[in-house]
Amino acid sequence: MLILDGLPDRPINGKTPLTVAKKPNLDKIAEISVNGIMDTIAPGIRPGSDTSHLALLGYDPYKFYTGRGPIEALGVGIELKPGDVAFRANFATVVGDGSIFDKVVVDRRAGRISETEELVKALNEISLPVEFEVAKATGHRAAVVFRGLFTDFATDTDPKVVGEKVRRCKSNRAEVAEIINEFMQKAHETLEKHWVNEQRAKNGLKKANAILLRGAGVMKEVPSFKDRFGLRLKVISATALIKGVGKLVGGEVFTPHGATGNKDTNLESKISSAVKALDSSDVVLLHLKAFDELGHDRDFNGKVRFIEKLDPHLENLLDLDLSNVCLIVTSDHSTPVKVGDHTADPVVVSITHEDVRRDEVTRFDEFSATKGGLCRIRGMDVLNIALDLLNISKKFGA
Amino acid sequence: MLILDGLPDRPINGKTPLTVAKKPNLDKIAEISVNGIMDTIAPGIRPGSDTSHLALLGYDPYKFYTGRGPIEALGVGIELKPGDVAFRANFATVVGDGSIFDKVVVDRRAGRISETEELVKALNEISLPVEFEVAKATGHRAAVVFRGLFTDFATDTDPKVVGEKVRRCKSNRAEVAEIINEFMQKAHETLEKHWVNEQRAKNGLKKANAILLRGAGVMKEVPSFKDRFGLRLKVISATALIKGVGKLVGGEVFTPHGATGNKDTNLESKISSAVKALDSSDVVLLHLKAFDELGHDRDFNGKVRFIEKLDPHLENLLDLDLSNVCLIVTSDHSTPVKVGDHTADPVVVSITHEDVRRDEVTRFDEFSATKGGLCRIRGMDVLNIALDLLNISKKFGA
Repeated sequence: MLILDGLPDRPINGKTPLTVAKKPNLDKIAEISVNGIMDTIAPGIRPGSDTSHLALLGYDPYKFYTGRGPIEALGVGIELKPGDVAFRANFATVVGDGSIFDKVVVDRRAGRISETEELVKALNEISLPVEFEVAKATGHRAAVVFRGLFTDFATDTDPKVVGEKVRRCKSNRAEVAEIINEFMQKAHETLEKHWVNEQRAKNGLKKANAILLRGAGVMKEVPSFKDRFGLRLKVISATALIKGVGKLVGGEVFTPHGATGNKDTNLESKISSAVKALDSSDVVLLHLKAFDELGHDRDFNGKVRFIEKLDPHLENLLDLDLSNVCLIVTSDHSTPVKVGDHTADPVVVSITHEDVRRDEVTRFDEFSATKGGLCRIRGMDVLNIALDLLNISKKFGA
Repeated sequence: MLILDGLPDRPINGKTPLTVAKKPNLDKIAEISVNGIMDTIAPGIRPGSDTSHLALLGYDPYKFYTGRGPIEALGVGIELKPGDVAFRANFATVVGDGSIFDKVVVDRRAGRISETEELVKALNEISLPVEFEVAKATGHRAAVVFRGLFTDFATDTDPKVVGEKVRRCKSNRAEVAEIINEFMQKAHETLEKHWVNEQRAKNGLKKANAILLRGAGVMKEVPSFKDRFGLRLKVISATALIKGVGKLVGGEVFTPHGATGNKDTNLESKISSAVKALDSSDVVLLHLKAFDELGHDRDFNGKVRFIEKLDPHLENLLDLDLSNVCLIVTSDHSTPVKVGDHTADPVVVSITHEDVRRDEVTRFDEFSATKGGLCRIRGMDVLNIALDLLNISKKFGA
């Protein structure tokens, strides 16, 4: 399953990056596929990349989505148990007197600090009434997990804008808020006097003297992919959020050499890793993030260029043995350049296998797909369709 | 959202009113839209106009439909609270001795009485153990609401055919049936001796000496449109049932000057009211009833003529600023002239906006729509699709 994150678009003067780009291999895939449009969640529902990937892996996001905190935490390598409460976090600079909650945020990225390993280590030595874990993410980012708090209502301590005070966490359970606020204060005391920050101060850099929390979510009981489908899942991505979804459903996750989650990613490395992964996995999800970034950046030509950069690498997928492999090429959502964000416009989906009912579609784009043999399906359908084509799904009834 | 009630049809010799009529503006709308077919409830499910309008406004009718009684009551202007039990009612003529339940219905419309204002006033002065309200509807019709009875099981007192006795109400709660039967008896006593009826008798007209109840439903807790979508809704219709749906979801309802709910309606007035309503509302639903009436009357040519009568007025909609407005033209259900009633045949739906993925459909009819870029959607989808096109919907996930 090749997921071209955010690739589909809305037309500008009737054209989208997919209708403009030269992409013989992508069009060849459409030609040998049954094609259609797909609502990864449901028509008109704007998907996140996390909720839509859950659906594409056969997990109803309305049932299994935990919010972003746990998925990011899983994505940076923290193991979670049901009931653990996870936050996204960032190192920040605060100034002023009194407790952490009297101080004002002056930089939400602490001067774009990125070497936070020692700070994270120190934070993990704080003493709290519950177990917890802090993990480094990219740049100034981190994830923080409090074990066994069993609530998904815990407000952000991150005020989200500079010039405001750090917020007290509130929760439907007073003891939960108390623990999180104790962490906030102790983290500040630990960071303020840490040698890394003393050195930064000497060098005229902003201190990373606070850690701000947002996006609380509680880990749910999620049946593993192996238990649900009896299949081994591998998710190949450089993006923590997508790796987190893979972990959430109990899959193996892997970031190939040179994969960056952006347009400078090593396409050769990613695609050959995916092909190779088919030897030891049953379902391989290969995630390419760059189109989404280019959509957020409103870069029409950038999308066109990246389609054309990707296309030659797709020859490896055309070489797959389609008597034995089902290839799905699709997206998790549209990220139109005119909008600069995810929209609910349906995505293009092409499913191929030796036995598929091929249609007359010969181009992989938003308009051609509407005439395909799949008509309009949902994200939750696509894995089931593939397993059925491979004759490995269970019959419902007699 | 322009709702052409009951317009789609089944072919007779391969033709439907939509394929026969000359309708350049309706076809122009299809040409600039993404088109498709739509099951307002679900494939094969025959919709009422009430259930389908609920779905078109984003309310699952299986969850929020109250039965017809409360919707009609809301439509004629009674305010309802959750737990109120509402009936549709009609003034009727009964004869015989004994209590109301010993008497026989001889005319279910009391000689098609229409000036019932004084009778309604008298009924509202009856003394009962619970609060209640009677409101006039069109002609011999009325709505009756009993406050706070909290049951949706209360049988009709209307035998539905002449020559039969008035029925006792039964309910799963004995005290509810008792109150309704007490109302039936006291209403009869009040009406029998009312001066309006004495005058009618003198003039040789049938007495409106009973009020018959049917279609009990209990008002539910329904979240308002404003609370669910953060948007102001206006429903423009001359039909009590549709106005009732608008009220049920907390919308504003409006009947423009000259709107009749039939083919003599003032189209100019209705369409210009809808365009004007866009100034003060976010979602405007404009309901045109006549096609449904013509379908019930099995009048193929009448449908053709009314399409051609409507078409010139649609120029106003083509003048809308489609960078800022999303226009949806569709129906609540089919009312084929060969059937004379609602069917589940999917309706035509055209959605247009500056950024929509236009397709190659150039005609607004049941056959062309199947080739459109929407493929096949459901009634519950259409509002979400429009809000997404306007970039005002919330993202689900990250």
